[in-house]
Amino acid sequence: MANSIVGDDVYGEDPTINALEERCAKLFKKEAGIFVCSGTMGNLLAVLSHCQRGEEIIVGKQSHIHRWEQGNYAQFGGVSAMTVEIANDGTLPLKEIEASIRGGDSHLPTTKLICLENTHNWAGGKALSREYLRSVRELADHHKLKVHLDGARVYNAAVATGMDVSEIASYVDSIQMCFSKGLGSPVGSIVVGEKKFIDLVRHKRKAVGGGWRQAGILAAAAMYSLDHAIKTVTRDNKNANGYSGKGFNDRTPNHLKEALHANEEGLTNIVVVRCANGVTPSQMVSFFQERRVLFMVFDDHRVRLVTNWGLTDEHIPIIFEVYEEFIKTLH
Amino acid sequence: MANSIVGDDVYGEDPTINALEERCAKLFKKEAGIFVCSGTMGNLLAVLSHCQRGEEIIVGKQSHIHRWEQGNYAQFGGVSAMTVEIANDGTLPLKEIEASIRGGDSHLPTTKLICLENTHNWAGGKALSREYLRSVRELADHHKLKVHLDGARVYNAAVATGMDVSEIASYVDSIQMCFSKGLGSPVGSIVVGEKKFIDLVRHKRKAVGGGWRQAGILAAAAMYSLDHAIKTVTRDNKNANGYSGKGFNDRTPNHLKEALHANEEGLTNIVVVRCANGVTPSQMVSFFQERRVLFMVFDDHRVRLVTNWGLTDEHIPIIFEVYEEFIKTLH
Amino acid sequence: MANSIVGDDVYGEDPTINALEERCAKLFKKEAGIFVCSGTMGNLLAVLSHCQRGEEIIVGKQSHIHRWEQGNYAQFGGVSAMTVEIANDGTLPLKEIEASIRGGDSHLPTTKLICLENTHNWAGGKALSREYLRSVRELADHHKLKVHLDGARVYNAAVATGMDVSEIASYVDSIQMCFSKGLGSPVGSIVVGEKKFIDLVRHKRKAVGGGWRQAGILAAAAMYSLDHAIKTVTRDNKNANGYSGKGFNDRTPNHLKEALHANEEGLTNIVVVRCANGVTPSQMVSFFQERRVLFMVFDDHRVRLVTNWGLTDEHIPIIFEVYEEFIKTLH
Amino acid sequence: MANSIVGDDVYGEDPTINALEERCAKLFKKEAGIFVCSGTMGNLLAVLSHCQRGEEIIVGKQSHIHRWEQGNYAQFGGVSAMTVEIANDGTLPLKEIEASIRGGDSHLPTTKLICLENTHNWAGGKALSREYLRSVRELADHHKLKVHLDGARVYNAAVATGMDVSEIASYVDSIQMCFSKGLGSPVGSIVVGEKKFIDLVRHKRKAVGGGWRQAGILAAAAMYSLDHAIKTVTRDNKNANGYSGKGFNDRTPNHLKEALHANEEGLTNIVVVRCANGVTPSQMVSFFQERRVLFMVFDDHRVRLVTNWGLTDEHIPIIFEVYEEFIKTLH
Repeated sequence: MANSIVGDDVYGEDPTINALEERCAKLFKKEAGIFVCSGTMGNLLAVLSHCQRGEEIIVGKQSHIHRWEQGNYAQFGGVSAMTVEIANDGTLPLKEIEASIRGGDSHLPTTKLICLENTHNWAGGKALSREYLRSVRELADHHKLKVHLDGARVYNAAVATGMDVSEIASYVDSIQMCFSKGLGSPVGSIVVGEKKFIDLVRHKRKAVGGGWRQAGILAAAAMYSLDHAIKTVTRDNKNANGYSGKGFNDRTPNHLKEALHANEEGLTNIVVVRCANGVTPSQMVSFFQERRVLFMVFDDHRVRLVTNWGLTDEHIPIIFEVYEEFIKTLH
Repeated sequence: MANSIVGDDVYGEDPTINALEERCAKLFKKEAGIFVCSGTMGNLLAVLSHCQRGEEIIVGKQSHIHRWEQGNYAQFGGVSAMTVEIANDGTLPLKEIEASIRGGDSHLPTTKLICLENTHNWAGGKALSREYLRSVRELADHHKLKVHLDGARVYNAAVATGMDVSEIASYVDSIQMCFSKGLGSPVGSIVVGEKKFIDLVRHKRKAVGGGWRQAGILAAAAMYSLDHAIKTVTRDNKNANGYSGKGFNDRTPNHLKEALHANEEGLTNIVVVRCANGVTPSQMVSFFQERRVLFMVFDDHRVRLVTNWGLTDEHIPIIFEVYEEFIKTLH
Repeated sequence: MANSIVGDDVYGEDPTINALEERCAKLFKKEAGIFVCSGTMGNLLAVLSHCQRGEEIIVGKQSHIHRWEQGNYAQFGGVSAMTVEIANDGTLPLKEIEASIRGGDSHLPTTKLICLENTHNWAGGKALSREYLRSVRELADHHKLKVHLDGARVYNAAVATGMDVSEIASYVDSIQMCFSKGLGSPVGSIVVGEKKFIDLVRHKRKAVGGGWRQAGILAAAAMYSLDHAIKTVTRDNKNANGYSGKGFNDRTPNHLKEALHANEEGLTNIVVVRCANGVTPSQMVSFFQERRVLFMVFDDHRVRLVTNWGLTDEHIPIIFEVYEEFIKTLH
Repeated sequence: MANSIVGDDVYGEDPTINALEERCAKLFKKEAGIFVCSGTMGNLLAVLSHCQRGEEIIVGKQSHIHRWEQGNYAQFGGVSAMTVEIANDGTLPLKEIEASIRGGDSHLPTTKLICLENTHNWAGGKALSREYLRSVRELADHHKLKVHLDGARVYNAAVATGMDVSEIASYVDSIQMCFSKGLGSPVGSIVVGEKKFIDLVRHKRKAVGGGWRQAGILAAAAMYSLDHAIKTVTRDNKNANGYSGKGFNDRTPNHLKEALHANEEGLTNIVVVRCANGVTPSQMVSFFQERRVLFMVFDDHRVRLVTNWGLTDEHIPIIFEVYEEFIKTLH
C-alpha cells in the first residue's frame, strides 16, 4: 500500500485503481468494474443503475440489501421492493420470485431486478448452487429482468461450491464483492458488469460522494487480497466448516447439546451457534469478548462466528479453549 | 350536486367541501379532515405526512397500500416498508408487527408507522375486531409509532362489527375512507386526523396536484352518500353475507361443491368465490359479464363480488339466475 | 354536467372523459390526451414522465412550475433544475437556455427538458411568439431535449397571437392546459402528447392518486368550456387589453400616474397594475375586495387582475367605478 | 499512514478516525465531527440532514453544491433549490437571499438552509469576510434558517482573512472541509456541527454506503495534513497571490495584455487567467500539460491554476518559464 502509485480517480487517473478494476473485470469475466467505498455503496449504486424511480426489486426479506442498508433503494432511489422469505439454504424460492413479478397495470410498479445474496449471511453463510443460479437466470431472462448478486462473500461461495467466481458471475448481470470482510483489506468493494452499466454506476458513485481521489492506496490492499484469496478463503472455509462446527459440538456435553448447537454441514466461513434453554447469545458473546474473541449476537437465539483473513490455524485451539471455559460456567 | 355552492378549495373557499370536511371530522371524532381525489391519494399523503425520507412503514404484504398503489410511498416519498403476511382475518399478526419494528442502529431505517386495512380487501372484506384494534394501538403507543388505517370500506367494517366509525378511528391516528366504492359517490375520499397532521396532508396534496378548485360538486355527492350510508351499507353487508354466499353455495350441486365455493361467514360487502377443478375465475367472470353482471378476477383461483350502492335487493335474484345458468354450463 | 354519462376512469370506462381526451388530442393535433385534477398535477406528471431521477429541467425562475408548485419535481421526482431569469416578455432567453444545458461529465446531471409557460403569469400574461417557439424547438432538437409547455392559459395565448393552439402545440412535446382559470370549468386540466408519453403520464397519475372514478361530470364541464372557448377567451383578452389597462390609466389623474400604472400593451387576460409612492398592492386589493371585486396581490409592488369566464362585458363599468372611488381615497 | 492503528469505523472502533474527528471538532469549536469520503459526500449528507423531502435550500447558482454535485440534493433527497447569482466576491447578496426565503403557503416549499462556499471556487478562490458571514448568520437567525458552509478550502480562507477556522465556523451550523485539495491528503473530508446533527450525518453516511471499515489509514494522512496546514496553506496563498498573478502579468508583453490576464488581487490559492482575442483556455492548458504543469479549463474564457501541498517554492520559476515559452508561441 505504501508503495502504490496513485492519481485522481475522479478523473480516472489512479493507475492502481485502474489496474484493480481491470483485474476484477477479468476475474469475473465481465466488461468492466468499479472500486467503491463499501458493499452497501456497491449494492445501492447497482440497484439505482438497474432501476429507476417507480420500478421494483425482488429481494430476500432477510437479505442484507433489504434488511441492513436502511432501505436506501427506497430512501434515495424511489425504488420499491417485493420481499420474499428466504429458504434455509439462502435461496429465494423460484415460485416466490415468479409470484412477485409485477407490471402492466396502472395499480402496479414494474419489476426490474432480482437481488440474490451469495453466500447468504442470514442463512449462516450458505452458498447458492449452480442449478439454482441457472434457474434464476432462466426465470429472469424469461421475464426480461436483471439479476444483481450481493456477493460480499462470493469468494467463499466459489471455493465452497467448486465454481469459479466467473461462472457465478455468468448467471447474473452485476456482482458486488467486498475486499474487506473475508478478503482482509481495510476498505472497499468492487462492482462488475457490462461497460454501459458500470458507466452508470460510476456516474451515480460521484453523485453520492463516492468519488475518491487517491484511493489507490486502498486498491493496492485489494490487489494483495486477490493475490492470496484462494489460499486464505480455502483455509477460512475449512476452519469454519469441519472444524469449528464439529469442534464446538464435540466439546459440548450431552446435557447441553440442546442449549448450544453449532451448524455442522459444510458451509463457508460462517458458523452459527444456536442458543436455547436459558443460554443467551449475548451471554456467549460477552464471555468470548472478555477473552478477546469477537463473535456477534445474530438475533435472539443465534451467535455468528466468522473466520477471516486474520484468523489463522493457530487461533482455532484458543477458541476451543475459551469454549470449554464457557461450557464450565453453564453446568 | 347540481345545486351545490362552490368556491376555490385551494384557498379554502368552497363551502360544500368545508362542510364535508367538518362533518367527517365530527363523524370520526378527529380534529380535522381533508377531501382528496382518491383512496390512493389519501393513503399516499397520509404516509408521506407521517413519515419522512428514510423512515419506514409496517404494512400488510397483501394490503392495498403495498400492493396496488405502485409502491408510491417509496417512489415519491423515500419511505421503505417491512411487509407482513396478513392472516386469514385480514390482520397483521401482532408478533409479526413487533418483529418488524426497527431503528437505533446505523444499518437500519426507523419505523414510524403501522398501516392497517379495514375491511381488508384481499382477505375478502374481513373487518378488524375491537380487540385487535386496541392491541395494535397499545403496541404502537409502546413503541411510539403512529397507526394509519386504510379505511376505504371502513363503513362496512363499522356496520359489521357494531362499532361506530368514531370508535374505530379512536384506535388509529389517521383514516382514509372512500366515498366512491360502497358509498356510491362518483369521486373522492376523506382523510381525518389531528389538525396539525391534516395541515401537512393539505400542503402535500397541493404538491401532488390534488388541490382542486370548485370540487364542491363532488363533495355534495359525498354528503349525500353519508346521509344514507348506514342504510345502504347495512343492506350491502346483508346482501353479501347470508345472502350471496349461502345463496351461491345452496345452488351449487354436490358434484361441483369443490369446484365452486363462496365464503359463508359473516363478512361485509365482499363475496369471494373459490374456483377449482378446472373451473377458472376468468371463465366465471366472463360468463357473468356477458349477462351484464360485473365481477372481478381476484387472483388465479378467486372471483370477487362486491355489493354496493347501485345494487339493490331486486338485483340479487337476477344474479342467482345467472349463477344457475353458469352451473348448467359446467357439468 | 348533470346529464353526463360516466364510468370508472381508472379502467378507461368513462365515456365523457374518453370523449374529452380524444377531443383535446385532436384540438392540439397530438396523439393522445389525459384529463387530470389540476394544472400542478399535469405539470408534475409531465416532468416526471419526461425526466427520471437524476435528470434536469431548464425552467424559468419566475415560472409556475419552479415557483408555485412546491418544487415537486425535486420533492417527488428526484429531478433537479437549472433556473433562468425570464425576460420581460415571459421568454427564457435562448442564450440562457443554451448555457444551462448540461451533461457528459461525472459532476453533472443530464438535462432532459425545457419548460416554457404560455401565457406567462408572472410576466403579466404575455404570450410567446411563433418565432420564439420555433427557436426553442430548434435548440431543443439540436440538443436532443424535450419541451414541455405549461399552457394553463394557452388558449389566451392562441387568441392573442393568432396562432391555433395546435400550432403552438406543434413546437413542443407536451402541453398542459387548464379548464378552470380562464376557461371557466370547476376542476381539471388536460395533458397532451405522444401516445407513449401519455401512457406514462396515466401510469404516474395513478401513483399520485390522481386516478378518479366517475369524473366524467367534470369532463362534461370541460367539454362545455371548449365549446365556447374561442368566444369567451376573445372577450376576456379584449376586456383585459384595450379596455382595463387603458381604462384604468385614463381614469388616473396626472398626480397619481406614477403611483398607479396599468400595463397598456396588448396582452391577454391579465392586467398588472404597478403601485408606487406609498400606494400598496394590499391597499388596492382590500378596497376592491370590500366591494366584491377580487384582485390579487402579485408581489410587493404589483396587483394582478384577471378577466375570465365569469366576468362579462357588463362588469367592466362596475370595476371602473370602484377604481374611481379608490382614486378618490388617495387624493 | 503505514503505522496507523485502525479498527472498524462502522462500529466507531477506529482510533485514528476517532482522534481525527475529535481533533476537528476542537479545531472548529463544534460539538462533533465525522470523517467522510469526499467533499461531495460531506455536502450531500449535510444538506440531507438539515433538510427533509419537500424542504428547500438557498444556494449560489455557481456554487459547487448546485453546479458540480449532480443536483444530488434533489436526486436523492427530494430537496429543491432557490439559486442566487453569486457576486464577484463569491457572496450570495443578502437581499437576494432574503428574497429567496419561502414558506407558509400551500404553493411553496419551506426554506430550511442557506449554503455558502468559502473560498468560492467559481469566483476564483475569494474568501468571505467576517462582516458578510456575520450578516448571513443574523439573517438566518431572524428567519430560523440553518447555514451550511462548503468549506472545501476553508483553511485557505482562514489564512487569507486572518480569521481562525473556528471563528468562521461560529457563523454557520455546519462545515465541510476537504483534506484532499489544498491540504494534500489522498482521500477524505470532515463535516463538523452539533452532536445531534453529526449523529444524523453518520446515519445517512451509512445509507449512502460511506461507512468505511479501517479507513484510519486515510485519517492518519488527514492528521498529518492538519499538523502542517498553517504552514503549507500560508505558502500556497502566498505563491498564488502576489506571486503567480503578478508573476504572469509582469511576463505578459503589452500587445498580449488583453489576450491574457491573471487576477492580481490578494486571493487564496487559486489564480484565474482570462483568455481573449483568440487565445483559448484549452490552448493554454494543453501547452502547459505537455510540459507537465496541470491547469484546468474553467470555462470558455478562463483557466484555473491552483497551488497546493505538492507545489513548493521551487516549482514557481518553472511555471514562469513555461509561461514565457507559451507567450512566444503567441506573438
